[in-house]
Amino acid sequence: MTNEKLDIAIIGGGVSGVYSGWKLKQQHGDSKKIALYEGSDHIGGRLLSLRPPGSDNMVAELGGMRILEAVQPRIKDLIGKLNHELPEAEKIKLFDFPVDKPQNIAYLRGTHLRLDDFQHDLAKVPYKLPPGDDKGPGAIIVNAIEKIVPGILEATEEERRKMVQTAEYDGVPLYQWGFWNLLYMVITSEEYQFCLDAGGYNTTLVNWNAADAIPWYLSDFGVDAKYKGFTNGFQQVPITLAKFFENLGGTIHLNKKLRGFEWKEGYFELDFGSETVLAKELILAMPRRALDLLTPASPKLQEIHSLIASVTGRPLFKLFTTYDEPWWAHLPTSKNYDHIKEGRTVTDIPVRQTYYWPDEHGNPIKEGKSMLLASYDDGDNTGYWDGLRPQRSLAWRIGRVQAYTDTFEGADDNLGIPKGVAMFGLNQEWQQYEAPRRMVNEISRQLAQVHNIPATPEVKSAAFRDWGEDPFGGGWNSWNIGVKSWEVREKIAHPIPDCPLYICGEAYSDAQGWVEGALQTADIMLKKMGTFKHAAVVM
Amino acid sequence: MTNEKLDIAIIGGGVSGVYSGWKLKQQHGDSKKIALYEGSDHIGGRLLSLRPPGSDNMVAELGGMRILEAVQPRIKDLIGKLNHELPEAEKIKLFDFPVDKPQNIAYLRGTHLRLDDFQHDLAKVPYKLPPGDDKGPGAIIVNAIEKIVPGILEATEEERRKMVQTAEYDGVPLYQWGFWNLLYMVITSEEYQFCLDAGGYNTTLVNWNAADAIPWYLSDFGVDAKYKGFTNGFQQVPITLAKFFENLGGTIHLNKKLRGFEWKEGYFELDFGSETVLAKELILAMPRRALDLLTPASPKLQEIHSLIASVTGRPLFKLFTTYDEPWWAHLPTSKNYDHIKEGRTVTDIPVRQTYYWPDEHGNPIKEGKSMLLASYDDGDNTGYWDGLRPQRSLAWRIGRVQAYTDTFEGADDNLGIPKGVAMFGLNQEWQQYEAPRRMVNEISRQLAQVHNIPATPEVKSAAFRDWGEDPFGGGWNSWNIGVKSWEVREKIAHPIPDCPLYICGEAYSDAQGWVEGALQTADIMLKKMGTFKHAAVVM
Repeated sequence: MTNEKLDIAIIGGGVSGVYSGWKLKQQHGDSKKIALYEGSDHIGGRLLSLRPPGSDNMVAELGGMRILEAVQPRIKDLIGKLNHELPEAEKIKLFDFPVDKPQNIAYLRGTHLRLDDFQHDLAKVPYKLPPGDDKGPGAIIVNAIEKIVPGILEATEEERRKMVQTAEYDGVPLYQWGFWNLLYMVITSEEYQFCLDAGGYNTTLVNWNAADAIPWYLSDFGVDAKYKGFTNGFQQVPITLAKFFENLGGTIHLNKKLRGFEWKEGYFELDFGSETVLAKELILAMPRRALDLLTPASPKLQEIHSLIASVTGRPLFKLFTTYDEPWWAHLPTSKNYDHIKEGRTVTDIPVRQTYYWPDEHGNPIKEGKSMLLASYDDGDNTGYWDGLRPQRSLAWRIGRVQAYTDTFEGADDNLGIPKGVAMFGLNQEWQQYEAPRRMVNEISRQLAQVHNIPATPEVKSAAFRDWGEDPFGGGWNSWNIGVKSWEVREKIAHPIPDCPLYICGEAYSDAQGWVEGALQTADIMLKKMGTFKHAAVVM
Repeated sequence: MTNEKLDIAIIGGGVSGVYSGWKLKQQHGDSKKIALYEGSDHIGGRLLSLRPPGSDNMVAELGGMRILEAVQPRIKDLIGKLNHELPEAEKIKLFDFPVDKPQNIAYLRGTHLRLDDFQHDLAKVPYKLPPGDDKGPGAIIVNAIEKIVPGILEATEEERRKMVQTAEYDGVPLYQWGFWNLLYMVITSEEYQFCLDAGGYNTTLVNWNAADAIPWYLSDFGVDAKYKGFTNGFQQVPITLAKFFENLGGTIHLNKKLRGFEWKEGYFELDFGSETVLAKELILAMPRRALDLLTPASPKLQEIHSLIASVTGRPLFKLFTTYDEPWWAHLPTSKNYDHIKEGRTVTDIPVRQTYYWPDEHGNPIKEGKSMLLASYDDGDNTGYWDGLRPQRSLAWRIGRVQAYTDTFEGADDNLGIPKGVAMFGLNQEWQQYEAPRRMVNEISRQLAQVHNIPATPEVKSAAFRDWGEDPFGGGWNSWNIGVKSWEVREKIAHPIPDCPLYICGEAYSDAQGWVEGALQTADIMLKKMGTFKHAAVVM
């Protein structure tokens, strides 16, 4: 059954999809019929902002949670433009997002430290480190990078991207090195391990393409990185874009999974199972894993397999827990340290990063209902949690509610959102993202170890999102060693010259894992769409 | 073109394939036409024994290298039976294979220790360990297992396999737990990390099915494990089996890759590209990854995807280096320790395990041409080497010689094997397994760190085999969490009741990663083959 004939079909309701739809509608108005198809029940992709039950002043970010204004001009400009059109009460508001505070805990190698000890009591830190390492793990990596590519610290973002294309180490081009390999050349194994453990992430320092990892690290984890969070949740951005797209005449279909497509030398035939849609142009605004899932039933994607396979999905999850009180703020302290209030704590045990979640204005919660991003974990470590939660690939195939059995039940689970709380289009419910019971129990056990207390207070409710699940295949994607990303990035946007198939999304960008990357690739793609010459077609 | 009509086709020339062929020929004699097809240029699968250039007294094992006679009755019996038929000069000879010696090095967390320190100077060991941990990493795990399944240490191998099927921990059946999860319940994170680092393997303590990992660990890494090595190389076993199979009238075809097969309700049609073969019965004697590669063109394998996917391939490689002298035996020593002679050294840096390779009688090399298993590495750590060697999937697709560029060239590379050295059918050449140049350089650099010397002497030649490559997908396979392995093991041997398709190999056994496991599954399968009732068929 063929229901629909389109000028442009967009697959994927993440930022790159809704942004592209909005820009194309601005450009073409009513002259082009554009529809967006999203496989899940909501817009946002890997942005997912939820209010916890019973609370009127907090927003949990189960997906992307922040931006770096200084090095991310596209998202900064976009928010400005959206706010220009939004009424005052609905404007997108940002706050300073706190990370490392001196009194926060680093529980490493069985030793309880404070982050401040990295700078002021290096002897306590249980790694064999030279005395010069008292600037902290970020500074160790940044200095190592300068040894690998001399002069790069003084260069601008644009200059850095040029430098890494031609730089060599030991006679081998940088893009043929892994980041881990090169770091091992200039720092000791103990320095590397300290940076990995104390840095909190398992996937940023692994062996991905060094020519990409180096400028990426300098932008994102540079010594002075200043993050901004979102008062109403980051998901407000794609939801606003979707609304603007619809206001200009675009159509959005939720719960529509594309199964495959064929190019009929003039138009695409899109198979949605119960329905076939025809479109002159096709945008796949998707991560690598979603493209992989489409490939068996999509001959044109089989042609470009090597481009699609140039990045690797990196598993990552977030699990939030709520409590009646911010118990971390009441832990015993010493004359040297203030109470813990905000920012994050790190450990090398599998729970890894814990954020003392702020209120919607970025301020610490001082009393009453409060929340932790209890575990923010990625990479190899996610294997630990494989034994305590449902299988990764199941939820997309049979539905999350069906796949998630043995979920955690908390005393607050049935509380609703208090009346009058702004939602700005967010309509997902926390309860749809129930956390696995065994995972909440083990995270609680590890949080007690990290905070050096017998047990943590009762969890009132918990929400969980594993971005390693289909169709995402990772919280972010990283360029593979040996790939010239600057060439693939341009090529994959319009991979087959005589076919109006377009691909965009964070996966194939310079800012992998960031909304900035989704916008960058969408901009590259939109420019290429403007120059494509269509043959006259009858669908 | 259809060239051949067979009673039984066997795909895969590893131990389980040639063993099955030999047993079937013994049973059926000339009444059944049986042929074995192997995709590579030699028999042996993941057994690969090579003599290094210019040496007459050493055999490098690039694949499996040892057995545990006490818990591996099948391989012990098989060697006995083969030796019964072999002439004296060609008999399969074993020697005691040394592993942990007190003076060997443990370079952990930047600290140079001797293995003996684990027992006698625990304070020097840079992990937070309770005093009771002075029995070494193996004992810590074994004691932890007893806490998880009380009574299991006293049980026999057979009783243990029964116990784990019904045992629970915290109300959850053992097979729904990961081994890593359970170890974390009974030992500290520092104990776990010590056992992982000092144990030398990255994949044995990870989160695989606890109901399998526990008896497997007790057999294989139990406190008293006594290994035996092979004077003429372990590959002599499958080569002898292949010869015996041929002597009984079986046919072996090398360099024949099966592309896919179809079941024609009475016989199989096997597609080898240039040739189609018909067979009444089909044995796939293959690891999981090889089955995965066959699946797209083999409808019957698509039917049993969930059985095939019940195990995970674990990457693993071996890299051997040769030298003019056994430099490790001449390193400075102290009054407390003898010179290093034999067995292995471990470290937590990516080079991981190094074996001071013995001569063909299991004795240490005292002078002259000598050899190291320089790096024996598995799991997540193999990601480190991804930046320094060719892509995993390339070698099977385009041929190893084509895929391996920038290989290490050593001064001994062109020396042949001295005349008169026994080869017992081994016809592969060391030079076919050239090591990547950058990998040899980095391994040398790390070996110097481990041995606390400025540099290691010149490498004269190097050989490398990465079992993560296609079609192996891993050095071994491990059962996934949630799988009842004792059911799948039986089921997959003959997965579709009315179709004479059979599967065997280490992947779906109780002794994963061991030849014993290949033999176990072959025996299960051969029993099932004996009971299948064929319909009358015309091919």
